[in-house]
Amino acid sequence: MTIRPALVDDVPLILAFIRQIAEYEKLSHAVVATEEILRESLFGPRPAAEVLLAFHDDAPAGYAVFFHNFSTFLGKAGVYLEDIFVDPAYRGKGIGKALFLAVSKIASDRNCGRMEWCVLDWNQPAIDFYKAHGAEHMQEWGLFRLTESGLRKLAETQA
Amino acid sequence: MTIRPALVDDVPLILAFIRQIAEYEKLSHAVVATEEILRESLFGPRPAAEVLLAFHDDAPAGYAVFFHNFSTFLGKAGVYLEDIFVDPAYRGKGIGKALFLAVSKIASDRNCGRMEWCVLDWNQPAIDFYKAHGAEHMQEWGLFRLTESGLRKLAETQA
Repeated sequence: MTIRPALVDDVPLILAFIRQIAEYEKLSHAVVATEEILRESLFGPRPAAEVLLAFHDDAPAGYAVFFHNFSTFLGKAGVYLEDIFVDPAYRGKGIGKALFLAVSKIASDRNCGRMEWCVLDWNQPAIDFYKAHGAEHMQEWGLFRLTESGLRKLAETQA
Repeated sequence: MTIRPALVDDVPLILAFIRQIAEYEKLSHAVVATEEILRESLFGPRPAAEVLLAFHDDAPAGYAVFFHNFSTFLGKAGVYLEDIFVDPAYRGKGIGKALFLAVSKIASDRNCGRMEWCVLDWNQPAIDFYKAHGAEHMQEWGLFRLTESGLRKLAETQA
């Protein structure tokens, strides 16, 4: 198994993984990303996130997507792990663990104050895995979201 | 009331707000940020977040801290709202609402795909406020965290 940062030529593969993870999370309807959008957002002048790709015998097996967040209490940047996904055909080979460790190594090497991520509450295998690796479930925090249309509506209410 | 982006000379004020919000959230022990750390992380060569300051009759009344996140499903950047805080002496004047609207306006102007933030589950006034402004509570998502020491431990396990 090898892990390397994604390059712009990997955009079709990245999009294929995004579609697979959405299917696994029963959220396929929520995917609006296209190759063109990803080329601009990940490999344009201001990359919004970084991607690691995992290969098993040279075949694409999984990916991780992360970006830097910020903690006011710590006063410095951390890493937010947006996605980890392993193709079902390659599960049980330690690929997800290797991706998780690779991102946490990057966070540690960059002197980050912490690493955070969200997990669907029915994904017990993932929850068990993360807890076994020292992660804490911040149960008192709830995630809130405004969609793009919600943002526009709010913006329109301002003179 | 006026709202403006924070400048490097505002770092002492930003730190004072961070300490106040930590006290309100009963997390004062978790604040390790210093003026020096904030100068580097917010106003150094690679700013990790942006800060808006609110003033009431020229007196500092509150602040908002945000940075850009990324959604794989949308394929593009969003805004993550890390903190909103209003000094208790200035509550009930619409300052928190104005800060929230100012950040959502920035997210909308920058063509962001969404805005997200976390709320402590006992902070019902905040929860009611956000829902009234169109936000959805993503109840199926749980937040997980690895601290800096947890990150280092994991990194050390890797050859």
